[in-house]
Amino acid sequence: MLVKSKLKYIQSLGHKKPRDEAGVFIAEGTKLVKELLEEQPASVLEVFALKEWLDAHSKLLTKSKTEEITPIELGRISQLSTPNKVLAVIKQFSSSFPATAIGKIVLALDGIQDPGNLGTMIRNADWFGIEQIVCSPECADIYSPKVVQATMGSIARVKTFYVDLKSWMINQKGVRIYAAVLEGLDIYTMKKIKEGIILIGNESKGIREELLNMANVKITIPRRGKAESLNASVAAGVILGQLV
Amino acid sequence: MLVKSKLKYIQSLGHKKPRDEAGVFIAEGTKLVKELLEEQPASVLEVFALKEWLDAHSKLLTKSKTEEITPIELGRISQLSTPNKVLAVIKQFSSSFPATAIGKIVLALDGIQDPGNLGTMIRNADWFGIEQIVCSPECADIYSPKVVQATMGSIARVKTFYVDLKSWMINQKGVRIYAAVLEGLDIYTMKKIKEGIILIGNESKGIREELLNMANVKITIPRRGKAESLNASVAAGVILGQLV
Repeated sequence: MLVKSKLKYIQSLGHKKPRDEAGVFIAEGTKLVKELLEEQPASVLEVFALKEWLDAHSKLLTKSKTEEITPIELGRISQLSTPNKVLAVIKQFSSSFPATAIGKIVLALDGIQDPGNLGTMIRNADWFGIEQIVCSPECADIYSPKVVQATMGSIARVKTFYVDLKSWMINQKGVRIYAAVLEGLDIYTMKKIKEGIILIGNESKGIREELLNMANVKITIPRRGKAESLNASVAAGVILGQLV
Repeated sequence: MLVKSKLKYIQSLGHKKPRDEAGVFIAEGTKLVKELLEEQPASVLEVFALKEWLDAHSKLLTKSKTEEITPIELGRISQLSTPNKVLAVIKQFSSSFPATAIGKIVLALDGIQDPGNLGTMIRNADWFGIEQIVCSPECADIYSPKVVQATMGSIARVKTFYVDLKSWMINQKGVRIYAAVLEGLDIYTMKKIKEGIILIGNESKGIREELLNMANVKITIPRRGKAESLNASVAAGVILGQLV
């Protein structure tokens, strides 16, 4: 049985402040929790699950504290509208060393505020083999439940850093910056790249001017129809697919 | 002042049954309502907005019934967690004539259940100049508030039809079917197409086998990293960008 203090503690992790103070986040659902147990077993601090789930996944659970809970208890601690069978408390990943873009492709996000978009971009990066994302401080929190769920497990593999994008980009000397804008070079005419910073802007305001001014190349996914813009995470996927 | 019966009526439109019985749907926010007023003025039946919004958009409002409401009233009828300044009741678009794929590119969706994904795909189609989408009956309802919001106005331009995909595809004689799967032909090696059905499957189960068997070409966005899959709307965007 879940004691009341634990129940309140887990519920509090839906909010950034208690989450950061405890240095943890929550992940829900079989797919996500399994990926975390496989990729980052030492980070999975506690697993709360229905009996059937614990029985079915006992081999994966040798390193984590587990607690059997009832469906009603799961309903109380879950952040999902349709709770799954498992919820885990995960240690936040260390992000002490700053990302470098030299010799690599890094995705740089300026003010991506929609949690679903940020999570989907982490998943995009993981699909296309991008190992690092740098985010401006205005981006959504990667440990918020909606971001974590949207990554579908990729949060365990892609390193994400919150940095002052301007000073970080200044330090990446010689690395070309490709900024996604509405009027730029057609990405389908470009060759693949092996090094570069791919800069994506806020869903409605785009990239801040002081960052846009630092771009070496402005790039565009050409429009054939009438939509005003593409969804930011779709745009990031299309660009990564074409350039990486 | 919003009378109680009207308030209840608008609230009921969050649900499919009352929405379909009335043959309407709701759209919220300046961008979306403006696009609908510009593209489909006759479909915009009633506009409920704060005084400042009505004043600022009076030129667009010559054909629609308008009603000034207070922020509290807006909060009560809005489906958004952060209500904007305007909500409109829109007539559902006619979809009486079935879509044909001959000479065109049509996006065919088999069981896309996440409303955000469906809305984003409609927006993708609009960006890449695809005029028609056919959906299996298991797809989310295009008139549900989350789908409408995610289209960002593209719902006014892209025609969407709910059909039995198998019999519809049988009728598109000679049109090639390109099915998005995890192991198929690398899309980056393919030439652009001018006619075809691009078939995208359910977020977790993919394309049903009976439809997959009808495909002329199985296509894939090659993976370089470790993510198990791409988000369905990102995949659709990447494929449309490459093939159209």
